[in-house]
Amino acid sequence: MAARKKTSKAAKPPRSEAKPSEGGPPPGKAKPGEARQTDALVKRRNQKFDTLTVDLIRKTASTVHGEIRGRKKPDLAFPVRSLRNVSYSQKTGYFEMGRQKKIRTLTVNTVKSFAQTLRMMGLSKQLVETNDFATKRDAYYQSKNWEEARFDEQPESDSVMDDIEALFSVQGISREQLRFIPDEHGGAVAGRLVVLDPDRETGEIERIDCTRFGSGAYSIPSSVEQLSFETDAKFILAIETGGVFQRLQSHKFWQTANCILISLAGVPTRATRRFIRKLSDECKLPVYAFVDCDPYGISNIYRTLKVGSGNAAHLSQFFCVPQARYLGVTPQDILDYQLPTHPLVDVDIKRARDALKNDPFFKAHKPWQKAMDQLLKMGVRAEQQALAKWGLNYVIEEYLPRKLEQTAGFLP
Amino acid sequence: MAARKKTSKAAKPPRSEAKPSEGGPPPGKAKPGEARQTDALVKRRNQKFDTLTVDLIRKTASTVHGEIRGRKKPDLAFPVRSLRNVSYSQKTGYFEMGRQKKIRTLTVNTVKSFAQTLRMMGLSKQLVETNDFATKRDAYYQSKNWEEARFDEQPESDSVMDDIEALFSVQGISREQLRFIPDEHGGAVAGRLVVLDPDRETGEIERIDCTRFGSGAYSIPSSVEQLSFETDAKFILAIETGGVFQRLQSHKFWQTANCILISLAGVPTRATRRFIRKLSDECKLPVYAFVDCDPYGISNIYRTLKVGSGNAAHLSQFFCVPQARYLGVTPQDILDYQLPTHPLVDVDIKRARDALKNDPFFKAHKPWQKAMDQLLKMGVRAEQQALAKWGLNYVIEEYLPRKLEQTAGFLP
Repeated sequence: MAARKKTSKAAKPPRSEAKPSEGGPPPGKAKPGEARQTDALVKRRNQKFDTLTVDLIRKTASTVHGEIRGRKKPDLAFPVRSLRNVSYSQKTGYFEMGRQKKIRTLTVNTVKSFAQTLRMMGLSKQLVETNDFATKRDAYYQSKNWEEARFDEQPESDSVMDDIEALFSVQGISREQLRFIPDEHGGAVAGRLVVLDPDRETGEIERIDCTRFGSGAYSIPSSVEQLSFETDAKFILAIETGGVFQRLQSHKFWQTANCILISLAGVPTRATRRFIRKLSDECKLPVYAFVDCDPYGISNIYRTLKVGSGNAAHLSQFFCVPQARYLGVTPQDILDYQLPTHPLVDVDIKRARDALKNDPFFKAHKPWQKAMDQLLKMGVRAEQQALAKWGLNYVIEEYLPRKLEQTAGFLP
Repeated sequence: MAARKKTSKAAKPPRSEAKPSEGGPPPGKAKPGEARQTDALVKRRNQKFDTLTVDLIRKTASTVHGEIRGRKKPDLAFPVRSLRNVSYSQKTGYFEMGRQKKIRTLTVNTVKSFAQTLRMMGLSKQLVETNDFATKRDAYYQSKNWEEARFDEQPESDSVMDDIEALFSVQGISREQLRFIPDEHGGAVAGRLVVLDPDRETGEIERIDCTRFGSGAYSIPSSVEQLSFETDAKFILAIETGGVFQRLQSHKFWQTANCILISLAGVPTRATRRFIRKLSDECKLPVYAFVDCDPYGISNIYRTLKVGSGNAAHLSQFFCVPQARYLGVTPQDILDYQLPTHPLVDVDIKRARDALKNDPFFKAHKPWQKAMDQLLKMGVRAEQQALAKWGLNYVIEEYLPRKLEQTAGFLP
């Protein structure tokens, strides 16, 4: 049942005198000299990381090789991947992996998984050297030609890959830099942004102008490590639903508000999170999240975007977006904008209570505790499209401009 | 358990002497005169459909209005949306809606839903006239300001919208032409294609060159009715997984094979299916599907792409792609390419048997019955990425070029 909140006021939308700021000049109009310099910079940075990755793989393998030649038992120490081994500090802004390690020593019992780990690292080295990549599934099937070291099941190869990922994450190298890419799609991007993407073979930089896609958008590739950016936008707007993204894109909200729109399509994929993080870091852009006002939107979509998730803390340093702030829809918005609501169901209530009780993020942020308490007391949730009650484009003409005048008041 | 098929042959990949054909000149290099002509054509065609849509809405409403003024009971006749009211002919190539109608007459009991239907049609007219659009959810929330005609629950407004969609589909007007768009993302596109997309406000045509997205791609908008195309590609390759799409895109397979790559990401969304259909129709391009060899890939992903689905036959005329053919992975490929497999589980077997017994598509196509029988006898399934056993780029260098030499042998 849609428990529409009754108010004593007449059904008139709240209005603001605010107008969205005028758009500046089009992005990405660098002079040829500057452009060349940027291209060279992009290439140098990418090469630097590749060299670092290959060096680390070689160093790890050499140590093992040396120990075997010295008739010692080699071992590999992997960080423990679990919520037990996680900490959260507001200063770094994301879940961090602790110091617990699990040691895998080469013995008769471990010889197969030890060999598989080394083969997987060898595959990674080969991928970097040939400027290629593999998905988890590709890697599993590749192993079918590794004879005795082949994996019988994909969960086995996934687990070895996760260990390698955790091992190298300590050195600041992500799985994508090891050239293991996710199988999932990235999100969609539109707005005042030029993406610089070097050709896999020639290294020539393709400049992708995200203002030029009509009603369509730029689809983020599975791996974004090689990308660089040029933009004069003032902020990134990360949007939960495809419907709202399409509305803002078709109405060129990015032009009037001078921003970059990114569609999360629910809980954002690795590629989408990494894209937002890189773009925000490199271009010093604030990130505002615009999601449904319900425990899922807040504690799953937004929390995951901002600080990462507990059981994958070794990823947080690359994938979370600590600079993200919560634009809305807030519990207070439901009242202020007299939004149509749905009652919270049991799973919503459980999720909210869990967050308040167990989640280090919510425990660290008083304003979120208050907001979540308010939501629980109100006993309702609201979707971002509920703003359509006041007109399909109310979100563009009133809600967002008004919100964007008070960014300091956004939830952390 | 991965039941890896054992063969007596040595583990060497099957090879072909075939090389992919050379790419032609870059697409979309029309002369200025030609380009202007195309722009005018695009605009004229879009206006024609909009005029037709508004005329039909007005005609329907006028009839109702006239009957009320004449003190008669007006009614609306909606086609019945169910599998009972569906037929399949190989000639049209998709599930077609039958002639059964349900009549909604204006009475005391139906007055609310009758009014809601007319309001929804009114919203559609307004959207066409302002060149705007709404998702199902937007429309539901819009109704919250329709006073007595407001919907209490979204399923109610969805159902009214589906009826209107079915009503107008008889006249060849789709829901997207009524400006009700899906909330879901479209798929990703890369390759030898220029998409022409008129600006919502100025009508100016944006030309989007899908060869220029680097490792990223063009993300299909929620509605594609307004798009036109320029291409010199020879075919469309529709790909199930994001991983294989990314590989073909990053290695510019579209250049060597002179084609357009489209990522389905599982069962394709409405926008993706409509995009493929429109592109294939307007540019006379064959469509080849490249999906996993399992009952889900065949009877859900491929069958839905090609002929539509039973309970939404009123959509098939717009959304299915009757010209699609099945490139692979076929059950025979599992043997020919000695692919690693997984055993069929109960749900796979049930799905395959259901398709053979009840699905008009499989009942009409002998080659599919044989292929499905073969799969059931083999008792295994294979993923498209299983080709990575022979090397990550075996799919590009051997499998696809070889297959594309024998398109006549593709399953229907």
